[in-house]
Amino acid sequence: MKKHNFSAGPCILPKEVLKKASEAVINFNGLDLSLIEISHRSADFVAVMEHAKDLVLELLDLKDKGYSALFLQGGASLEFLMVPYNLLPENGKATYIDTGTWSSKAIKEAKLLGNVEVIASSKESNYSYIPKNYEIPSDATYVHCTSNNTIFGTQMKEFPKTDKLLVCDMSSDIFSRQLDFSQFDLIYAGAQKNMGPAGTTLVVIKDEILGKTGRKIPSMLDYQVHISKESMFNTPPVFPVYVSMLTLEWLKSLGGIAGIEKVNEAKANLLYAEIDSNPLFQGVANKEDRSFMNVTFTLTDDSKKEQFDSMWKAVGISGINGHRSVGGYRASIYNAMPIESVQVLVDVMKAL
Amino acid sequence: MKKHNFSAGPCILPKEVLKKASEAVINFNGLDLSLIEISHRSADFVAVMEHAKDLVLELLDLKDKGYSALFLQGGASLEFLMVPYNLLPENGKATYIDTGTWSSKAIKEAKLLGNVEVIASSKESNYSYIPKNYEIPSDATYVHCTSNNTIFGTQMKEFPKTDKLLVCDMSSDIFSRQLDFSQFDLIYAGAQKNMGPAGTTLVVIKDEILGKTGRKIPSMLDYQVHISKESMFNTPPVFPVYVSMLTLEWLKSLGGIAGIEKVNEAKANLLYAEIDSNPLFQGVANKEDRSFMNVTFTLTDDSKKEQFDSMWKAVGISGINGHRSVGGYRASIYNAMPIESVQVLVDVMKAL
Repeated sequence: MKKHNFSAGPCILPKEVLKKASEAVINFNGLDLSLIEISHRSADFVAVMEHAKDLVLELLDLKDKGYSALFLQGGASLEFLMVPYNLLPENGKATYIDTGTWSSKAIKEAKLLGNVEVIASSKESNYSYIPKNYEIPSDATYVHCTSNNTIFGTQMKEFPKTDKLLVCDMSSDIFSRQLDFSQFDLIYAGAQKNMGPAGTTLVVIKDEILGKTGRKIPSMLDYQVHISKESMFNTPPVFPVYVSMLTLEWLKSLGGIAGIEKVNEAKANLLYAEIDSNPLFQGVANKEDRSFMNVTFTLTDDSKKEQFDSMWKAVGISGINGHRSVGGYRASIYNAMPIESVQVLVDVMKAL
Repeated sequence: MKKHNFSAGPCILPKEVLKKASEAVINFNGLDLSLIEISHRSADFVAVMEHAKDLVLELLDLKDKGYSALFLQGGASLEFLMVPYNLLPENGKATYIDTGTWSSKAIKEAKLLGNVEVIASSKESNYSYIPKNYEIPSDATYVHCTSNNTIFGTQMKEFPKTDKLLVCDMSSDIFSRQLDFSQFDLIYAGAQKNMGPAGTTLVVIKDEILGKTGRKIPSMLDYQVHISKESMFNTPPVFPVYVSMLTLEWLKSLGGIAGIEKVNEAKANLLYAEIDSNPLFQGVANKEDRSFMNVTFTLTDDSKKEQFDSMWKAVGISGINGHRSVGGYRASIYNAMPIESVQVLVDVMKAL
């Protein structure tokens, strides 16, 4: 049976990417060797890393603008520590916008390294909206935000206009919509939504912001060390980087971010239209802040739950149970999700 | 042409492991979904993580002895930082045995966190031997050693007898020989030699040694956090963990460490015998400290280099150029290397 994988992450990847990745595990580049058993210093793998970094900057329109791309390890969770280590002077102030679970975790780790001020939060409404109208203190070193909140289904449509450094966790919506990415000084994203498998973290940094805190930074946490070694300070996560490269090539072939954005809008509009018109469902997130990646909704009549669950399971849908902190349902419709699968879900909702 | 992959790491993995890994990238567990596109919280992946951790403790004979196994990210390089963060009190002393490049890097990172004493080093002879007869200071908190030195081809045959905590970087020889692993309080190893692909790091810890430094440890660097979350504090590197599990299953099917040790001894003896009997070659490492994983040797007559290089390339051998800091040749003969491939190399050496 054809599966419709709405998992929030790790999540659906393009079929052609999976096919090439599977082949490379047996025979990479016609070498008669597996991708995962050759040296990361071999010409064949160095070319993968270089091409992957290059595609990132090209797709984000950040080439020749003073940015570096890195493929690191540790997920966004390690970036929560690396960001203040690299940007926050001992006596500086870091400011955070708290839009959900992941923002809160970033705040917690930053507090270990210095003065942190949460300048806005929607915690009191279980993060159902994106806070606006906050002030950024004049003594802030940087402002940290989370562009998309996987668990709650909200997404920032505007970003702070500020002369401070702007840092953004884009783990769950990078490469999904057109933005002026040069407004950010540092972007990071775990691969396992729109870029590849779990096990690598993309970091895109404006080089000139580094080296200014006076801190002694452990080598593995120091962005300048990784940049100086071209993202190969230590053995990189070879397979996740390769699959990310394949996914970025696939994205480029579809017309890049501009191309996929149209598809993503169509998918989100299709699903939100059903939620808004069908009296059996209601959306969770504030309408103007709705995510185009993670669509959260609930049944208006809980007695229909058993019937609805058996109906979507019967047509091959998986991964749409909501996160325990929100409940209900969450349909994650990342780049690789075809609109046909969204239609299958909408058809089930109509038939309920 | 059949390839004989002597790469120092990432390196050869068992063919049957590569085949299963390749299949799982398309269809994992018969789910009609890829291993890399399902949730790491799904029952299918949780079973992988649990089985992998269980196999580690079983193969090391550390089950029910108060140890935990973790599959983390960041390679041994991040462990260089995590070890002192978790074990060294602010006013404590860490002691290190310096047996090569990787020991030196571990020492460098530990110095950021406190008082570090190098109690023995073979640096003056380009690390050609393992230092013995050192004293461990009574105020040491832990002793750190590197069991096998990939670059130099040396291997510790005995470990310090001490009442201090004993920490060992076993990145390049874990699971290759029988040891009393309960003599160690903390073992770590990057996967990409004897365990799996690059992208995960095995850590095996005696639980009772943790939580005693008084330090505030960032979450991602805190072994207790990872243990409390069963190695799933954040999204784990799904594919590297799965392939590690497959490799550990393969090892168990061969009779575990006792089984593979016999094969490893036979391979190493075959190659060292040729080096010692053939006047065209000489070994690099001190004989009693020779590694059974990485065999370093040079030509006694450099004018033969071009001929030798073309001969081994002609029979499908790859990855035997020595590290730049040693020169000559390095044949890495990890667990998955069949003795037939070692024989092919020996035959070329005989024919030179």
